[in-house]
Amino acid sequence: MYSFKNDYSEGAHPRILKALMESNFVQEEGYGEDQFSINAIELLKERIGRTDVDIHLLTGGTQTNLTALSAFLRPHEAAMAASTGHILGHETGAIEATGHKVISIDALDGKLTPANIQAVLEAHPDEHMVKPKLVYISNSTEIGTIYKKDELQQLSHFCHENNLILYMDGARLGSALCSTENDLLMTDLPELVDAFYIGGTKNGTLLGEALVICRAALKEEFRYHMKQKGALLAKGRLLGIQFLELFRDNLFFDLATHANQMAAILRVELTKANIPFLNHSPSNQLFPILPHSVIADLESKYAFHIWEKVDDDHSAIRLVTSWATKKEMVEAFIDDVKVNIYSV
Amino acid sequence: MYSFKNDYSEGAHPRILKALMESNFVQEEGYGEDQFSINAIELLKERIGRTDVDIHLLTGGTQTNLTALSAFLRPHEAAMAASTGHILGHETGAIEATGHKVISIDALDGKLTPANIQAVLEAHPDEHMVKPKLVYISNSTEIGTIYKKDELQQLSHFCHENNLILYMDGARLGSALCSTENDLLMTDLPELVDAFYIGGTKNGTLLGEALVICRAALKEEFRYHMKQKGALLAKGRLLGIQFLELFRDNLFFDLATHANQMAAILRVELTKANIPFLNHSPSNQLFPILPHSVIADLESKYAFHIWEKVDDDHSAIRLVTSWATKKEMVEAFIDDVKVNIYSV
Amino acid sequence: MYSFKNDYSEGAHPRILKALMESNFVQEEGYGEDQFSINAIELLKERIGRTDVDIHLLTGGTQTNLTALSAFLRPHEAAMAASTGHILGHETGAIEATGHKVISIDALDGKLTPANIQAVLEAHPDEHMVKPKLVYISNSTEIGTIYKKDELQQLSHFCHENNLILYMDGARLGSALCSTENDLLMTDLPELVDAFYIGGTKNGTLLGEALVICRAALKEEFRYHMKQKGALLAKGRLLGIQFLELFRDNLFFDLATHANQMAAILRVELTKANIPFLNHSPSNQLFPILPHSVIADLESKYAFHIWEKVDDDHSAIRLVTSWATKKEMVEAFIDDVKVNIYSV
Amino acid sequence: MYSFKNDYSEGAHPRILKALMESNFVQEEGYGEDQFSINAIELLKERIGRTDVDIHLLTGGTQTNLTALSAFLRPHEAAMAASTGHILGHETGAIEATGHKVISIDALDGKLTPANIQAVLEAHPDEHMVKPKLVYISNSTEIGTIYKKDELQQLSHFCHENNLILYMDGARLGSALCSTENDLLMTDLPELVDAFYIGGTKNGTLLGEALVICRAALKEEFRYHMKQKGALLAKGRLLGIQFLELFRDNLFFDLATHANQMAAILRVELTKANIPFLNHSPSNQLFPILPHSVIADLESKYAFHIWEKVDDDHSAIRLVTSWATKKEMVEAFIDDVKVNIYSV
Repeated sequence: MYSFKNDYSEGAHPRILKALMESNFVQEEGYGEDQFSINAIELLKERIGRTDVDIHLLTGGTQTNLTALSAFLRPHEAAMAASTGHILGHETGAIEATGHKVISIDALDGKLTPANIQAVLEAHPDEHMVKPKLVYISNSTEIGTIYKKDELQQLSHFCHENNLILYMDGARLGSALCSTENDLLMTDLPELVDAFYIGGTKNGTLLGEALVICRAALKEEFRYHMKQKGALLAKGRLLGIQFLELFRDNLFFDLATHANQMAAILRVELTKANIPFLNHSPSNQLFPILPHSVIADLESKYAFHIWEKVDDDHSAIRLVTSWATKKEMVEAFIDDVKVNIYSV
Repeated sequence: MYSFKNDYSEGAHPRILKALMESNFVQEEGYGEDQFSINAIELLKERIGRTDVDIHLLTGGTQTNLTALSAFLRPHEAAMAASTGHILGHETGAIEATGHKVISIDALDGKLTPANIQAVLEAHPDEHMVKPKLVYISNSTEIGTIYKKDELQQLSHFCHENNLILYMDGARLGSALCSTENDLLMTDLPELVDAFYIGGTKNGTLLGEALVICRAALKEEFRYHMKQKGALLAKGRLLGIQFLELFRDNLFFDLATHANQMAAILRVELTKANIPFLNHSPSNQLFPILPHSVIADLESKYAFHIWEKVDDDHSAIRLVTSWATKKEMVEAFIDDVKVNIYSV
Repeated sequence: MYSFKNDYSEGAHPRILKALMESNFVQEEGYGEDQFSINAIELLKERIGRTDVDIHLLTGGTQTNLTALSAFLRPHEAAMAASTGHILGHETGAIEATGHKVISIDALDGKLTPANIQAVLEAHPDEHMVKPKLVYISNSTEIGTIYKKDELQQLSHFCHENNLILYMDGARLGSALCSTENDLLMTDLPELVDAFYIGGTKNGTLLGEALVICRAALKEEFRYHMKQKGALLAKGRLLGIQFLELFRDNLFFDLATHANQMAAILRVELTKANIPFLNHSPSNQLFPILPHSVIADLESKYAFHIWEKVDDDHSAIRLVTSWATKKEMVEAFIDDVKVNIYSV
Repeated sequence: MYSFKNDYSEGAHPRILKALMESNFVQEEGYGEDQFSINAIELLKERIGRTDVDIHLLTGGTQTNLTALSAFLRPHEAAMAASTGHILGHETGAIEATGHKVISIDALDGKLTPANIQAVLEAHPDEHMVKPKLVYISNSTEIGTIYKKDELQQLSHFCHENNLILYMDGARLGSALCSTENDLLMTDLPELVDAFYIGGTKNGTLLGEALVICRAALKEEFRYHMKQKGALLAKGRLLGIQFLELFRDNLFFDLATHANQMAAILRVELTKANIPFLNHSPSNQLFPILPHSVIADLESKYAFHIWEKVDDDHSAIRLVTSWATKKEMVEAFIDDVKVNIYSV
């Protein structure tokens, strides 16, 4: 059984484990004040091209989202997210548990635009309703789409004009930035968003997300919020060492590129086999639509999520590739689809 | 500079890193549903001697405390803790941030008794005050003391009689259970407390605490709370693999015993040198009282916390030993104290 | 300028003010333990036909909703409401501020059914999502519709089968129960819902809602929650005296009947004048659709909300009648509509 | 049975009820946007001598405290209060329920000073602890003491220097300001504190507290917080009408003066009878220490709280006078004490 279920099925890239081994007996300060974390943050600032941002290392996406959003928002302020947004449907009400409503915006492609945020603002005119304040976007999105630079510029401009906070969930930022369709650079982000995070967990680390706070007003005393939410690891070095290794050279981007390439092979070959897709996804998540009989056969050899029923005979499945995905298994999968399809 | 600052200055025990390496490319389910975590939990149940407990693996102490307490308490219920309790003074209001007051109880030795809990109950008679509901204790405590079996039995009986929840923070449970003065067994705990956790971070893992929920009523749907608080790691295997290694044989207890032995050498030798201690601590934290001039000299070679000023000329310092503490550095430290003391 | 804007434009029914005057110098216990509140609660139990319910008097609808829902739900549990539900759009995230998500269910007529709740349950299968637990309904609804007995029975049965809590917001319960289309009795409610409240503010009191908790498991220590949320008035007598007067005889129902009758006149006469309505509302809220020019003229003499734009030339307005609505002003309004309509 | 139990045993001053009657059928906007509330707020600004403050009318003390503090504080910030402070022991964890710790400061006379706040600041140096941010004081305090102008000036200066928020709970502000020992004016308060409230409930209204926000940064969007906490009454006029009447002339101060005079008679006469007091209280709360036998006799004719046991034979009781306290009952009480004391 080979898994295309997600991009966190394996451990960490071997270089990361090696870095942990080599540094293991160095004594260090706790709670992220170790030299590894300090160096990792400096390195990240270089890669982002900005020394005036604040960077914090946290353990996972939900933790990062809830810590950031609860620190950024006042009690009456709400977040807005596409209906597919991770904070809306897959974090067990983590944001609401910190006291804030998340307003759902229907968006077929998983992306927000000034127009649909504007509609939310108009529907929330006074103190009898929450105040929509933070725009939550994911890049790549939960359905594999990515923001083009001009789309993000428009959003950014709109948020700035309307005094909104623009926050980017980058759990799969590597895959987005390494997409062949992408025209955004890591160095563009601090100009365009108020805060974002660079996902490690889904791109080669054991765990770890690097939150980058770009807007000055959001930086203040953020470590208090991390501690309060249980997000300051005693051995913060564990995160520092990993991000140091990931960004020491091009490893972060190499890993994401591999994931995208594996997805590209799947996309191209399944398309050749006349398999339709639920949407156009240029990143490491694909949603091919297959006959139920084919899905049943594939399930005996591969693990993946059944995403949604399309009609009585077909469903979309979700295939996720990662830094660890093996090309031969991708090819085997494609062969198995083809064999099954032709026999339908 | 050698550090006695805490028990999380180094990485993980080499066997744990080795286990991570060896399992690295096994594909597994996410969010703690991997086979490693499942096996680790089974193994822990064996070690605890009970199959009817629920066990969950979380990343750190503050996270475990806030997730457990907020899951266990209704909105109007409060926790009680000794004034030295970690949740009171060192978790940035993490429990209050989930909505619950923590009532401080003065306790010179860091331990709670039926008598001082009874006083709190009497002071909270009606709905104009919070309802004291959960008794938070640490073993070993934040000042190095440990609960004897009869003390815990009395607390347990009292809590049972008064329908209170008894919760034990076991960040340093290893050191407590391996103390030469200890008469508690791991297998006693499910009989005596409603929930407790077994600390990994301070006893040899990179991170990880194993929360054991003993009382049936507290178990229900606990994973929802973990997810909501950002405590479900995508790569939950990281925790499972470590606990599996820690409890595969006697490693957990061996590591704690080493830490205690290093502390014992310090205690015995400093006592011989007529150094007084702030309190009697039979675990891996010691609080010797030293002249300020001696402290200043020691600080040039060793890292440690200055705990509290005792008089104009003396302060207590905190020395913490761990699985990684080197005997030769313990001896060097003792020598340096002696040299300095005699020259005062 | 005469207002049809809402049912809380005037003070209280004169009998209620008189009762406050007459009791003014009686010394009483504070915080709802006064004899007036005790008697009011006994009287309400009689009217409801059940002695085994718990009843609490609170000041307003948002306060009642947030106090009840936060007391009833565990942290990971969510409420469900029709998209028009008051807690969703008009309480500034009050429920979320206590930590709970409110799941929106599209429902054209403002009412929930087993089918649309079932769909929510199916979409929330595991711990990565909130657990839908409480069904919030309003009767009458925010758009004037009412639940028929068989509809409520079906909902009740479904909630019971699925271990859900069924909660009815009764801010306008009087108007619902006195509707000519209603077949529910106050005495039916404890059999069908787990908790509901009887709205005083919108039916003749200065303020006050009587929360009735029917399910035993939800009753425990509710006064703690009231105090914590700021919902226990020092002079709780203020609420007791008013509910005592309201239910001493038929006053509560007489007032609601008057409001409904005033609405009925508007409905019948506007219908005769060929004015369409946004929906069928048999209670004290009406949503006639009028040309913009007519609305503009009416606004010079009457206050009302413009509810929603229907097309380029027409909008629906909201007319609310109350115990205090004057028949001559209803007639004047109708005349003014007719004059304006014919001149369009 | 005559009650000295508290200052909210009766209804409202007759002039206030009269004002409610006379305005009853005027149609008004809801939610505090009525003309009565607007006028009351203008009038209060005049009385306070400042037009640049924001004033909001809420229903009770706990509600006011929790709404204000949760609006003013960021998630990691804590309040500080004297150990006798109402928010610490008598509001069922209302502040903690909004996420904020309340730090208890021992203060024998119920009052805070720069010195004891300074000690708290020093004990909270970093992000592992909450950040002490808001100083909560009550005037008069929960044990009847009052702040002199120079004491408040020192506190104010200290808070300003340390960027702390100074908040005054004025549930019994009337009694404090009308004390014969007071040298503070209402018009001094906006210069000295960042926010305070003027208590109506305990000084003649049915309910109602007027929150005055003086510091500009705390004013923003406060009505959102009120709505979210259930503190915006639909018939906000109920509060506006009462405060308008209370401050139309000198009524607020006359009522407080009466309460204080009744207390003064008790203080003078009991002192003459050699009855000691627990503390020196120059306001409407007194804590005489009486033999248990005398207390038992008095309890057959008077209601009051037994405050605390002083020794095996004596306890302090709490006597509270109000605008409604009858002089003849004060005299009767004194006579009864004397008779009983002499017979001991």
